[in-house]
Amino acid sequence: MRVKLTVCYDGTNYSGWQVQPQPECITVQQVLEDAIEQVIGKKVRVTGSGRTDAGVHAKGQVAHFDCDCSIPPERFYRALNIQLPPDVKVIKSEGVDQTFHACNNAKKKTYCYSCYVSDVDLPLKDRYSVNIERMPDIDKMRECASLFVGEHDFKCFNASKGGAKTTVRTIYSLDIVQDDIDIKFIVCGNGFLYNMVRIMVGTLLKVGYGKATKQDILTMLESGKRELGGKTLLAKGLCLEKVDY
Amino acid sequence: MRVKLTVCYDGTNYSGWQVQPQPECITVQQVLEDAIEQVIGKKVRVTGSGRTDAGVHAKGQVAHFDCDCSIPPERFYRALNIQLPPDVKVIKSEGVDQTFHACNNAKKKTYCYSCYVSDVDLPLKDRYSVNIERMPDIDKMRECASLFVGEHDFKCFNASKGGAKTTVRTIYSLDIVQDDIDIKFIVCGNGFLYNMVRIMVGTLLKVGYGKATKQDILTMLESGKRELGGKTLLAKGLCLEKVDY
Repeated sequence: MRVKLTVCYDGTNYSGWQVQPQPECITVQQVLEDAIEQVIGKKVRVTGSGRTDAGVHAKGQVAHFDCDCSIPPERFYRALNIQLPPDVKVIKSEGVDQTFHACNNAKKKTYCYSCYVSDVDLPLKDRYSVNIERMPDIDKMRECASLFVGEHDFKCFNASKGGAKTTVRTIYSLDIVQDDIDIKFIVCGNGFLYNMVRIMVGTLLKVGYGKATKQDILTMLESGKRELGGKTLLAKGLCLEKVDY
Repeated sequence: MRVKLTVCYDGTNYSGWQVQPQPECITVQQVLEDAIEQVIGKKVRVTGSGRTDAGVHAKGQVAHFDCDCSIPPERFYRALNIQLPPDVKVIKSEGVDQTFHACNNAKKKTYCYSCYVSDVDLPLKDRYSVNIERMPDIDKMRECASLFVGEHDFKCFNASKGGAKTTVRTIYSLDIVQDDIDIKFIVCGNGFLYNMVRIMVGTLLKVGYGKATKQDILTMLESGKRELGGKTLLAKGLCLEKVDY
């Protein structure tokens, strides 16, 4: 039986999604595999829709695994949650066809990057959002955000250690929502390169502060000149909202 | 010089606002007093608008202290924040008249109690909001919330260890805001007894689940029968939003 899981996690204390060779690195995949082993008494490999980096959060990461077990798949999440720590929980489990593959079949992913503007790091925001200190020009950022929409070669929005075969991706939408001091960048695409959202948002903020132009972004997308872009923002502002199949 | 501070904190790791005799109890007042001592080189007593319980958060707690120091009061918060831990920050400091008293002059306090409805404790909500598992009847709760508005004797919304001289308080408003699975109770009054907001919200939820009636609340307010009310909800859902003077 193949089981599909929808997973929420607070990534603060994790070395990302993927199991690491160093035993001191606790990962979300590892704690999920350990919890499943405790429930079914057997080691399994969990396949996620993709990795999330150290410190990145998720509201709707998707994963699958195979097992023979008498627990109905739609109730499996309850047994798992008893074993899981408070910062990783499975919100849904369902039986799926053997052809379902959490990574290969993912059609669309939505990420949200959260910032806030304050001259003080705010204790009640700072766990899931990044203090950018000054208000950027939202209209300018929106204008440039639209340049990312569509199919592009995002090679200069790819961290050097990212080992993707192709750097062409399609962005379906990139919305910027401002509510008082909070700014959210909600980006939906068919896939994302290593650090891609964090570099894109860093570049948009550079535009919002008047340090980069629309032309710079067009040049980045055409020429791949990474140095025109903004810095890679902190992981804690990023959340994988959902994966569509 | 008297300095007024506006303080934000994540109360998760604190034994509340007020300094405790046990040295193992770390309190917000204590870390503030320690930080001020590091800045001005002298011990001071900080007076808050009132206590908040262990685990309760604040976006806008207000406090004052007296000192002779060369730092302009409106810049004092910057020096303080360098000394303060990430979960306690001062967002504003200002010089005030010697007649200003953070506790005695407080005219209005606003608290927010946050809940969410889910069959799983959600890692990204659970630090600042309480999982109530089932959706209560919001309309019924709103109808009863209005009964609290006005001047009443809240003696049965007072935890037994509360030592207030009078249990009469005025509630100016109690709004219930629902957004998908999130429910917020925003209550504004001239003052609150020990655990009062948490008992009020617990009682409204009892109404929302059909386990208490409008009449029960009227009887509680008139007779002081605590047993008709709901349980005292967890501290982590409560946040002191602001104090007006």
